[in-house]
Amino acid sequence: MKSEIDQFREMVRAVVSTEIVPHIDAWEAAGVFPAHELFPKLAAHGLLGLGFAPEDGGEGAPLEYQMVLSEELGRGNAAGVSMAINVQMHMATPSLAKYGSAELKERYLQPALRGEHVAAIAVTEPDAGSDVAGITTRAVRDGDDWLISGSKTFITNATQADWFCMLVRTSDEGGYRGMSQIIVPASTPGFEVVRKLDKLGNRSSDTAELRLDNARVPVTNTIGEVGRGFQQQMGQFIIERLSACFSIVGSTEWALEKTREYLKVREVFGEPLANRQYPVFMLTELSADVELLKAMNEKMCRMLNAGEDITREATVGKLHAGRTFRRVADAAMQFHGGLGYMEESWTARFYRDARLSSIGGGADEVMLQVLARMDGYTT
Amino acid sequence: MKSEIDQFREMVRAVVSTEIVPHIDAWEAAGVFPAHELFPKLAAHGLLGLGFAPEDGGEGAPLEYQMVLSEELGRGNAAGVSMAINVQMHMATPSLAKYGSAELKERYLQPALRGEHVAAIAVTEPDAGSDVAGITTRAVRDGDDWLISGSKTFITNATQADWFCMLVRTSDEGGYRGMSQIIVPASTPGFEVVRKLDKLGNRSSDTAELRLDNARVPVTNTIGEVGRGFQQQMGQFIIERLSACFSIVGSTEWALEKTREYLKVREVFGEPLANRQYPVFMLTELSADVELLKAMNEKMCRMLNAGEDITREATVGKLHAGRTFRRVADAAMQFHGGLGYMEESWTARFYRDARLSSIGGGADEVMLQVLARMDGYTT
Amino acid sequence: MKSEIDQFREMVRAVVSTEIVPHIDAWEAAGVFPAHELFPKLAAHGLLGLGFAPEDGGEGAPLEYQMVLSEELGRGNAAGVSMAINVQMHMATPSLAKYGSAELKERYLQPALRGEHVAAIAVTEPDAGSDVAGITTRAVRDGDDWLISGSKTFITNATQADWFCMLVRTSDEGGYRGMSQIIVPASTPGFEVVRKLDKLGNRSSDTAELRLDNARVPVTNTIGEVGRGFQQQMGQFIIERLSACFSIVGSTEWALEKTREYLKVREVFGEPLANRQYPVFMLTELSADVELLKAMNEKMCRMLNAGEDITREATVGKLHAGRTFRRVADAAMQFHGGLGYMEESWTARFYRDARLSSIGGGADEVMLQVLARMDGYTT
Amino acid sequence: MKSEIDQFREMVRAVVSTEIVPHIDAWEAAGVFPAHELFPKLAAHGLLGLGFAPEDGGEGAPLEYQMVLSEELGRGNAAGVSMAINVQMHMATPSLAKYGSAELKERYLQPALRGEHVAAIAVTEPDAGSDVAGITTRAVRDGDDWLISGSKTFITNATQADWFCMLVRTSDEGGYRGMSQIIVPASTPGFEVVRKLDKLGNRSSDTAELRLDNARVPVTNTIGEVGRGFQQQMGQFIIERLSACFSIVGSTEWALEKTREYLKVREVFGEPLANRQYPVFMLTELSADVELLKAMNEKMCRMLNAGEDITREATVGKLHAGRTFRRVADAAMQFHGGLGYMEESWTARFYRDARLSSIGGGADEVMLQVLARMDGYTT
Repeated sequence: MKSEIDQFREMVRAVVSTEIVPHIDAWEAAGVFPAHELFPKLAAHGLLGLGFAPEDGGEGAPLEYQMVLSEELGRGNAAGVSMAINVQMHMATPSLAKYGSAELKERYLQPALRGEHVAAIAVTEPDAGSDVAGITTRAVRDGDDWLISGSKTFITNATQADWFCMLVRTSDEGGYRGMSQIIVPASTPGFEVVRKLDKLGNRSSDTAELRLDNARVPVTNTIGEVGRGFQQQMGQFIIERLSACFSIVGSTEWALEKTREYLKVREVFGEPLANRQYPVFMLTELSADVELLKAMNEKMCRMLNAGEDITREATVGKLHAGRTFRRVADAAMQFHGGLGYMEESWTARFYRDARLSSIGGGADEVMLQVLARMDGYTT
Repeated sequence: MKSEIDQFREMVRAVVSTEIVPHIDAWEAAGVFPAHELFPKLAAHGLLGLGFAPEDGGEGAPLEYQMVLSEELGRGNAAGVSMAINVQMHMATPSLAKYGSAELKERYLQPALRGEHVAAIAVTEPDAGSDVAGITTRAVRDGDDWLISGSKTFITNATQADWFCMLVRTSDEGGYRGMSQIIVPASTPGFEVVRKLDKLGNRSSDTAELRLDNARVPVTNTIGEVGRGFQQQMGQFIIERLSACFSIVGSTEWALEKTREYLKVREVFGEPLANRQYPVFMLTELSADVELLKAMNEKMCRMLNAGEDITREATVGKLHAGRTFRRVADAAMQFHGGLGYMEESWTARFYRDARLSSIGGGADEVMLQVLARMDGYTT
Repeated sequence: MKSEIDQFREMVRAVVSTEIVPHIDAWEAAGVFPAHELFPKLAAHGLLGLGFAPEDGGEGAPLEYQMVLSEELGRGNAAGVSMAINVQMHMATPSLAKYGSAELKERYLQPALRGEHVAAIAVTEPDAGSDVAGITTRAVRDGDDWLISGSKTFITNATQADWFCMLVRTSDEGGYRGMSQIIVPASTPGFEVVRKLDKLGNRSSDTAELRLDNARVPVTNTIGEVGRGFQQQMGQFIIERLSACFSIVGSTEWALEKTREYLKVREVFGEPLANRQYPVFMLTELSADVELLKAMNEKMCRMLNAGEDITREATVGKLHAGRTFRRVADAAMQFHGGLGYMEESWTARFYRDARLSSIGGGADEVMLQVLARMDGYTT
Repeated sequence: MKSEIDQFREMVRAVVSTEIVPHIDAWEAAGVFPAHELFPKLAAHGLLGLGFAPEDGGEGAPLEYQMVLSEELGRGNAAGVSMAINVQMHMATPSLAKYGSAELKERYLQPALRGEHVAAIAVTEPDAGSDVAGITTRAVRDGDDWLISGSKTFITNATQADWFCMLVRTSDEGGYRGMSQIIVPASTPGFEVVRKLDKLGNRSSDTAELRLDNARVPVTNTIGEVGRGFQQQMGQFIIERLSACFSIVGSTEWALEKTREYLKVREVFGEPLANRQYPVFMLTELSADVELLKAMNEKMCRMLNAGEDITREATVGKLHAGRTFRRVADAAMQFHGGLGYMEESWTARFYRDARLSSIGGGADEVMLQVLARMDGYTT
């Protein structure tokens, strides 16, 4: 008899294969997927609130269930949609769940877990890039409101989000200090989606640039403590890295399986490519890399369940996951030959999508920098 | 005072920047560029017949001029157009120039050098891939004609080509024997462009699949000797590799320059990225790889001018060039960060285009196989 | 207060630093360490029988204790001695403990766990290399005895071993069939240590070639079932890979710490090397690789404790561990500059020792082969 | 009929195989080779003065002859001796030949070219490493003499050198200014070889640390202009890089040939390793790397013959050569398996020797730094 988690995996796989896979080509072409249609369906299966507390409308499931969900999303060759869901569950909402007031949770978190609201996280700015300490978007107190002005860019889900978990400066201290996380509804006057961005991959996910010009938001929309935004966001980033590690196990295992099948049927010089030692060993190396990532993911689940800090593990995992994704995508394309370069082959989209993995969610160099500091270097 | 070849380089750069660069975005979007418009313009500057004999309508220029032309085409970030021109000059016409009858040259080569005809090379078949010995398209003699049946795929320039230099079987010997190179005009009854292919990159270049059903072509359209097609095509492949080596010097130098400029203006954590040793050394490694390719290119020019066989050098060069192109494209994207992943940035197209370099023109594994045989391995 | 396992780690570190580290230079120079002196000291601390059953004279400690022991041995920069101990505990004795008769265990296992006997494992043959199925050493039944003839090579501990766990053919079936594991005492007439081998690294460990010419051993010296030797040995190999993974965490962490310290004090161009981003990121990458190995090691402990098969994990782990060891050794040397190349620096021995990690205990290519079969390739 | 340069190659190969190869094991064991015995033999064949002017006692041979000589020395698996000869010809004498007075040349250069004097180059200091601008050894003027005090380390040929081409400070300007190249005879009072160093590889070459305590040398021993030492030494470094590039072609081609032969006779799993695609392609990749180096070497010959500056090419070449040497050594060992790790196999010494190639003669990071500056980075 199947274990409960295996049954859960089957259920998720069925949902992905009926609700996402048949539509992904159209969504990729459109440059956006209908989040307000898809999310309620996922929520109906309890997928959007998996790790959240029952009192917040979540399922209270152990972390291993989120791992399974992310893996199965990864297996759908629909990285854009998978990323959008990750934003909803692991990037825009964890701070709210952990630090948000009861009222904020009721107004924003619960609808998100029900799939009624689409959420987005807004940190990156045009001039700051990976340097979170360099953001300049400012919220100035005006009575019981914040007046927010500035720009944000590369914001996933932006064109259809109902609200944004936004990191802004709320004091003049500079550097890592004086930032706060504030929920900014899309309907806020002074808030504007400036333009939708055209990306190399993850095309079914909408990404856009935002502008705020004295956007007025109540101070009660602040998540947690005023002035603790940077620290809270750093914690949220860890969950983002973790969820990237989870989903990349799914996408790379799937791609390696597909490539293996292809090598078994593709004959060159009179025998299947699968009989040639060079491509086989190249792919086997990558299987080994995926196994290492799986071991790290399981370790992180265990540590988080035990209440331990996973900053180091998530940073190592993200670095390794990003590179493994890219290497798998590269090998899949190479061993599919000319066919692999055609957009009709799954390998082309996979290749375009995979490239984001070492840039988004903290570039490889940011991971190296974090680890260097942990190792005691001051560079 | 500028040397003659430097003046030539300036002229080519001007032509590329006026005739190609302003249109490339539109051509990429269209999935095709207007070869019949562009080629006569190039021919007007003597660019299409550069290395061909004056008696065939060529310029009789030393090989170094072709190197400069290819480099400058590479600098246009218009890999699709550059590839199409390479097909015209270095892939579809060298056998014709070397082995073709006077009549054939007059009817097909000379219009190609004038840019009136668009030429294509048709070797690869759906079921044979890199295995040229495995092609099955057959030409059966019928009086003074060949009746050709079969399929060809991944054919560059195919939707607008006036004629194809096609490799077909003309006997039952099998393997490397009994093949011939035959010129097949696009107007031949029984010849059909089945479908245009949608590629990851090089999108301004049209690629298609062909079908021939008893396509009737005069036997006098055979290039060189009946039965020597494989050997003649192998020679043509060497020129193709050489031209890839040339153009990749241009594209990678250009991309490294652009990335360098970006690093100098892009500030992160309060100083330009160009002050950080890690990206600088990564890019410097790639500069070194380009220098090695340049040295090899110069060696090949020298050897060819001296009438020596460059099979080994062109194979090494192609392998190294393909990888260098990809690594440069990858680094350029990485160090542009999120911006690099946007299609509005030059890095996205460059990244998609570069990927072909280790697949097309003989995949890396084919290069390794050729070298392994030259080194005395029998695998 | 320290946990029990942390106290254990401290104890082991103290033992290594007093019993091994002060002598290692002399032992390396001598090409052998005095196992009959050192092993009883280790046994006195319960270290040799750590994971063995109390009824066999072991400690019955959880696997995590063996992990700690191996890590600490790895931190001693005494890879030769560490390897010899691994042979005693994880390569020559596991089959005996699992399948051996009570009498065999009393005569051979218990003295080994007390450090009185030095044990060795004898599988590899001069003409078979990594191909265990190709061994030709034969045991022919003669009454209640085996008469064994053949050669074995690259045998660790060979010049001072009291007995060898030897894999030999006991039938004519060929291939993987008809092999048995037999204990061959060094005192057996007809058994001979032919010559001691001079190795690049791990020099404090004695390695030798053996010859057997009708060496007579009782049939009761057979471990487990006659004819099951190959299968039993495969299981023993898994433990060997696991123990390599454990110890390489220790050696690489130690080397990275030492290199970090050096970079902090070594000034070049007016500031410490530790301020330069390139070496720091190179070393940080390696720290990440070690973290991945640690996660895999912890996973293997958990799986083994749960009675699961770790063949895949140990094979991936060994492959990754071997490469990580080598890359760390290479980086340590590089960033020590000219000094690193001197034998007076720890980096030189470390570099020589580390190279074995991708050859011994199953070469990288053997690991890839095992994984390829597990992934369903038949190459 | 053989070309003159091919005859020269044969002659050199014969000299190497009779005068060096039979003795190399003994010299490696001794940690020194008898330069005063070997050098006159080489000089008798005109090998030591190959590229030097006839008026200085040299042969005035084109650079291609030095390339052949270095390649053939590289093929002897005697890197220590090869390096010592390179010091004599390409590291300690070029400045003297280019800038030295007639008297200095007569007293030091001519005996060196005759093999009567052993020469050494002394730049590196214990505290300065790769940072030439950081040297502190001082020469203070005292009448017509210099009084030199300081330390030098990692000095090749040091225990048997008759004189040293030494770079010292002759003014207080600091940084790159105020240095001079001075010839310091080993017999100078106040000059002392402090200790011989024990290296990982290149063991037949003696390396030592020097101390100078008011060592008195006539000012006329200054090579070229007082105060131009740094610039002159930079030029001498270029020749050193070039000669490393030359000799590494020889050593890597030789090692690849030897490994290929081994793979053809070594049977594993019933067939020669040479039939397995993975090792073959790994080695073929390395053959390609050697070809790239050869192309660069030929380019440098051509440029130098034309009087052009090869700083960029020699720097790229050295970087690539060092890595290629190491990768070839690593692969040779790996594919020889356990045997490769034994000192009785040529692969062990080759592996130890090869490691120096990315450290000595300017570490890889120094090459990257030089290239980064040439590319316009200021890091």
